[in-house]
Amino acid sequence: MASSSSLTLSQAILSRSTTHPHGSSNPPPPSDHRLSLPTFSLPTFSGLKSSSLPTTAATASGRRLTSRRRAIRASAAVETLDKTETALVDKSVNTIRFLAIDAVEKANSGHPGLPMGCAPMGHILYDEIMRYNPKNPCWFNRDRFVLSAGHGCMLQYALLHLAGYDSIQEEDLKGFRQWGSKTPGHPENFETPGVEVTTGPLGQGVANAVGLALAERHLAARFNKPDSEIVDHYTYVILGDGCQMEGIANEACSLAGHWGLGKLIAFYDDNHISIDGDTEIAFTECVDTRFEGLGWHVIWVKNGNTGYDEIRAAIKEAKTVTDKPTLIKVTTTIGFGSPNKANSYSVHGSALGAKEVDATRKNLGWPYEPFHVPEDVKKHWSRHVPEGAALEAEWNAKFAEYEKKYKEEAAELKSIISGELPAGWEKALPTYTPESPADATRNLSQQCLNALAKVLPGFLGGSADLASSNMTLLKMFGDFQKNTPEERNLRFGVREHGMGAICNGIAHHTPGIIPYCATFFVFTDYMRAAIRISALSEAGVIYVMTHDSIGLGEDGPTHQPIEHLASFRAMPNVLMLRPADGNETAGAYKVAVLNRKRPSILALSRQKLSHLPGTSVEGVEKGGYTVSDNSSDNKPDVILMGTGSELEIASKAADELRKEGKAVRVVSFVSWELFDEQSDAYKESVLPAAVTARVSIEAGSTFGWAKHIGSKGKAIGIDRFGASAPAGKIYKEFGITAEAVIAAAKSLC
Amino acid sequence: MASSSSLTLSQAILSRSTTHPHGSSNPPPPSDHRLSLPTFSLPTFSGLKSSSLPTTAATASGRRLTSRRRAIRASAAVETLDKTETALVDKSVNTIRFLAIDAVEKANSGHPGLPMGCAPMGHILYDEIMRYNPKNPCWFNRDRFVLSAGHGCMLQYALLHLAGYDSIQEEDLKGFRQWGSKTPGHPENFETPGVEVTTGPLGQGVANAVGLALAERHLAARFNKPDSEIVDHYTYVILGDGCQMEGIANEACSLAGHWGLGKLIAFYDDNHISIDGDTEIAFTECVDTRFEGLGWHVIWVKNGNTGYDEIRAAIKEAKTVTDKPTLIKVTTTIGFGSPNKANSYSVHGSALGAKEVDATRKNLGWPYEPFHVPEDVKKHWSRHVPEGAALEAEWNAKFAEYEKKYKEEAAELKSIISGELPAGWEKALPTYTPESPADATRNLSQQCLNALAKVLPGFLGGSADLASSNMTLLKMFGDFQKNTPEERNLRFGVREHGMGAICNGIAHHTPGIIPYCATFFVFTDYMRAAIRISALSEAGVIYVMTHDSIGLGEDGPTHQPIEHLASFRAMPNVLMLRPADGNETAGAYKVAVLNRKRPSILALSRQKLSHLPGTSVEGVEKGGYTVSDNSSDNKPDVILMGTGSELEIASKAADELRKEGKAVRVVSFVSWELFDEQSDAYKESVLPAAVTARVSIEAGSTFGWAKHIGSKGKAIGIDRFGASAPAGKIYKEFGITAEAVIAAAKSLC
Repeated sequence: MASSSSLTLSQAILSRSTTHPHGSSNPPPPSDHRLSLPTFSLPTFSGLKSSSLPTTAATASGRRLTSRRRAIRASAAVETLDKTETALVDKSVNTIRFLAIDAVEKANSGHPGLPMGCAPMGHILYDEIMRYNPKNPCWFNRDRFVLSAGHGCMLQYALLHLAGYDSIQEEDLKGFRQWGSKTPGHPENFETPGVEVTTGPLGQGVANAVGLALAERHLAARFNKPDSEIVDHYTYVILGDGCQMEGIANEACSLAGHWGLGKLIAFYDDNHISIDGDTEIAFTECVDTRFEGLGWHVIWVKNGNTGYDEIRAAIKEAKTVTDKPTLIKVTTTIGFGSPNKANSYSVHGSALGAKEVDATRKNLGWPYEPFHVPEDVKKHWSRHVPEGAALEAEWNAKFAEYEKKYKEEAAELKSIISGELPAGWEKALPTYTPESPADATRNLSQQCLNALAKVLPGFLGGSADLASSNMTLLKMFGDFQKNTPEERNLRFGVREHGMGAICNGIAHHTPGIIPYCATFFVFTDYMRAAIRISALSEAGVIYVMTHDSIGLGEDGPTHQPIEHLASFRAMPNVLMLRPADGNETAGAYKVAVLNRKRPSILALSRQKLSHLPGTSVEGVEKGGYTVSDNSSDNKPDVILMGTGSELEIASKAADELRKEGKAVRVVSFVSWELFDEQSDAYKESVLPAAVTARVSIEAGSTFGWAKHIGSKGKAIGIDRFGASAPAGKIYKEFGITAEAVIAAAKSLC
Repeated sequence: MASSSSLTLSQAILSRSTTHPHGSSNPPPPSDHRLSLPTFSLPTFSGLKSSSLPTTAATASGRRLTSRRRAIRASAAVETLDKTETALVDKSVNTIRFLAIDAVEKANSGHPGLPMGCAPMGHILYDEIMRYNPKNPCWFNRDRFVLSAGHGCMLQYALLHLAGYDSIQEEDLKGFRQWGSKTPGHPENFETPGVEVTTGPLGQGVANAVGLALAERHLAARFNKPDSEIVDHYTYVILGDGCQMEGIANEACSLAGHWGLGKLIAFYDDNHISIDGDTEIAFTECVDTRFEGLGWHVIWVKNGNTGYDEIRAAIKEAKTVTDKPTLIKVTTTIGFGSPNKANSYSVHGSALGAKEVDATRKNLGWPYEPFHVPEDVKKHWSRHVPEGAALEAEWNAKFAEYEKKYKEEAAELKSIISGELPAGWEKALPTYTPESPADATRNLSQQCLNALAKVLPGFLGGSADLASSNMTLLKMFGDFQKNTPEERNLRFGVREHGMGAICNGIAHHTPGIIPYCATFFVFTDYMRAAIRISALSEAGVIYVMTHDSIGLGEDGPTHQPIEHLASFRAMPNVLMLRPADGNETAGAYKVAVLNRKRPSILALSRQKLSHLPGTSVEGVEKGGYTVSDNSSDNKPDVILMGTGSELEIASKAADELRKEGKAVRVVSFVSWELFDEQSDAYKESVLPAAVTARVSIEAGSTFGWAKHIGSKGKAIGIDRFGASAPAGKIYKEFGITAEAVIAAAKSLC
């Protein structure tokens, strides 16, 4: 290997930092003196001595070259500089790069470009900044890290590997993207301890990070004492151009700015490349200005490829700004180090190919076999295991002190950390009788929410600007705001998608935090991608979705859900619940709270509903159950099935049919998923195979009902869009009536 | 009625314009001198003389009062000023307000607040600025208007009524929000001629407006000549705080800025109130700064309640900025004129109530009966019918000239305007034989797209930064960009939701424009709300959705659709198509192009598929059809059904079963919706009721298949999330195999 001086290295490791093309339509940030860091700053280098840092104004300017695509030829100054600390950082950074390159190459699938460009910030975060315990990825007070640009997951896997997490061994890196590995194609918290949330769908991660930071801020405000900051961590996130373009990111970041989440630090990997090419073709807005508008502190690191000190200084500055989240725009070269593919879309989402891997090894002076971690790098990182253990032990000691002084708070915090529900919590849920006054299930839901908030210390949530319609305010609490973060009513504004993803982040912060969020059921369309991530990543978010049918009336078809029940029944690992009255609403909340590993969606009515004889919490827990029956020997003439507001209609029809001598069973199908999980014997007891005369009624798409009504049954529903008129009128015009049920039943038995 | 002088009126009509509370976290716009208009400007007042305009620096400053909630008491200067032109404007503006108030009151449902606050800008747009022909709402060259804050639809209904549109007669106003009326609860283009698009779900409308403006810019670039600007109109949109919070709005507005859509003028109704109260609780970002970052020209009208000249001047200024869209932030008072409810959320979405209606009448000096349009107002507006006819006639004459000089272009433009498809267009679609090389349907789709682009003059579209994965580039065209708007490849960036809504706007611009858009099928979750509006509003957008199953492999469960086919099959008025090979892909495109009043979603494979014997375009048109069959008398032993990539698996299984002597029918279920529309006889010919041995195979949720396989059939599918691994491995592990089909078939017959 050829050797070279420090200066040679500085000259050789090229960056496009100062030639980043903004295009004529991309104005410079409004106030450069605030946004860009002076290159001559020499902040403390935590964990290493600062005296030998080579980054000075002279060397930094030496890096400035004019050609954007000029090849990077750092022909291995490594050996000479091996003894210096910066060289070790270089080496560690290159280790990260090559672990990513090698894993993607072996899988012949994946995204090497981002890890190669973001390795410096990744290294600095995991090696110098973040506080975590590799042997306990769930340590409560750890700093959280989210890779919002999830396709670059090899960056995180490489970092977890170096840091000593058990989840990512060398064989896991070699099994990248293979069946059963802990290194799937995008980061998945349910597969890989050390991964906080599931990312990949762009924009979700940064919104999750807002939720994580919110949870920290809330718990800190509730539990910290003047003499003990028992809750105290940062949330870091790396997001790319793709995340920046997604609307969800703007929603979540607007809220983060509003809430002043000062311990949220976001790194924007500004590499100017997206899958379709240069971002110039579709993304020429000034992100800095937008984030200033959103109320963030913005810093620009111009040289993210080799400007370690710039990155360090930016983080230091970010931490001094405690009332605003910080966006650190880090200009990097995607695929840094690849002589022929760096700074092009070709390195974004494909393996480099053997030839280019070889060229990159030569270019970055990397003589090692694939997947090799040099001993000095390994040794350098090895301190994180003992240091992490020490950090946790220190916190445990701090908590023991806290517990002595603040017994009650400590117990509450403990229960939030463990996720153990207080004994008998479900007794707080209200109960109803058929004599209770008729009410909308959205109102009954509010009674449940308020009852739960009294007994569940980690219960909090809110609505996307529909609190007064969704009936979701917790009356005993105020609003979570910048100056009142200890409160529990979250005000999301009209940002459904951001709301869902923020709640995923909250839910994944700590097992005992139970977030709920609310909007009109039809607007689950806006947040469907976030709900899917709840389901996939096992986040037990409670979705309070009111105005669940044409029963909302005059707002018309844009506001009336039709296909939504079916669409969620088809989604894996979601509980879709549509309670019919007070007891079923209470039952739905019981189920939702108990299911901490899957989200629950409660579809609730705007209109008043009667409390029906026969409904029960226990029934809800079975998903489908007999509400009333005048048959014997499990042989009704006909089975009427309904959900939510239509169970009342089915019951009325049953009353009429019984008057005519029919043996009629009425079944509430409040949750298809729960019913599916029951034993065959139970299912037969509710829906005997011999009884083929079955009628379903639901004010929504009939899609899917064939499963329960069978080939001979009749499904009454709505297979068109709704209409704007008073609810009663629409129900009648659409034939969602007891008369229709009676007629259908009679045609079958 | 008491009279008062002009000054008294100016003093009496209060506004909160200069006392708009920004809160400490909401910084002032960065450059006030650019954003706010000088109040002493006196622009031309189109349609009225300018000499008598009372808005001067003196009167404007006279309007400035300190109390934000101070009641508005303009006790009827109207009578005295009746003869002046501004008084007539006041009267017209109040007419709009009271039509909205009265309609909401009569319906006891609706949103009076926005129309009351936005009446001035509404009046100025429809009475002074916009060019349209009330008797032909479809006149091609009309200015487009979108009420993105659709809940305020009474504003638009009132304006259409005054302007002389046949669709909104007095009885329609009185039928607001009633069954069968042309005045539904939110604006619906399919119900009300004069309404361009369907709004209500927030943020959609402004994105639609971007699409409308894009269509104008594209057609203008293609068809305008130095001597004839045959395409030349503006697109106006009113959006509120709610729209501003939605991520989709940021996505679409980022693109509008990128594309430099100078003829898009957006009015932001900055009234500081959302449903949950003051926007301070959730929305404190600086919108002005954000829009500057997005590349828009931003103007602030501080007094949107009575500052008519400020509004006029802002529009004038906006029109001078031709390379950027303009956001006019108009600070208004929601519910302006209501003494006790103005400037509060209570006036947002509920009728004022009889008492407050009365108080508002007194306050604004409105002595008239409900729904009354004063004669002078009526007379003033009556000119729009003849003027509109003249505008259209003038344009027709211009077009006749154009046609003489530019025959070919005129013919092409005509076909775009009429929406008539060129004769024999479908012959351009490629055909395949079983010998054609196996290929992914995403690639076959690209062949279709490119074939169609050659014969359909209004065909254009693109991808959300996945063109090279979705295979959606039109090779004979360049990119639609700021400087090349005549091109047809749209680059949406990673903005799925904005993309869908922009395409809705494009589709609704002119019947012959056929937009397509593309992303991975799983990311329909991001754009579902826009797809639903396509379906509801009858926009024939073509959704090219590739990577349609676990067959995409290593990217894993975040990228693998499972429930998506079912979720769209449940949605009304959508064609969900999943073609199996080349001929079915061509068939799917034929169906999609023909269906101009409903969107089509094409689910396409990443992986290669064989061309199967028996598939056909004609078969696709029937939705479900027999691909192969060795039975006789319509009595197969078993029916195997599949879609897309699994049809090949079903066919392989059939081959094996036939070798064992079974009579097997293979049915392609490419579109359930189209199959549902066939005659009972046809359905029986494909799925004879007597044959209950049925097996379905589809690499997605089995939800819904019970309808086709019946109670005794077996559905092979995936009712869990996917996994990250090579595609073949996942197929095998999940049991999506011919072996599984054979085993299931054997268990049934």
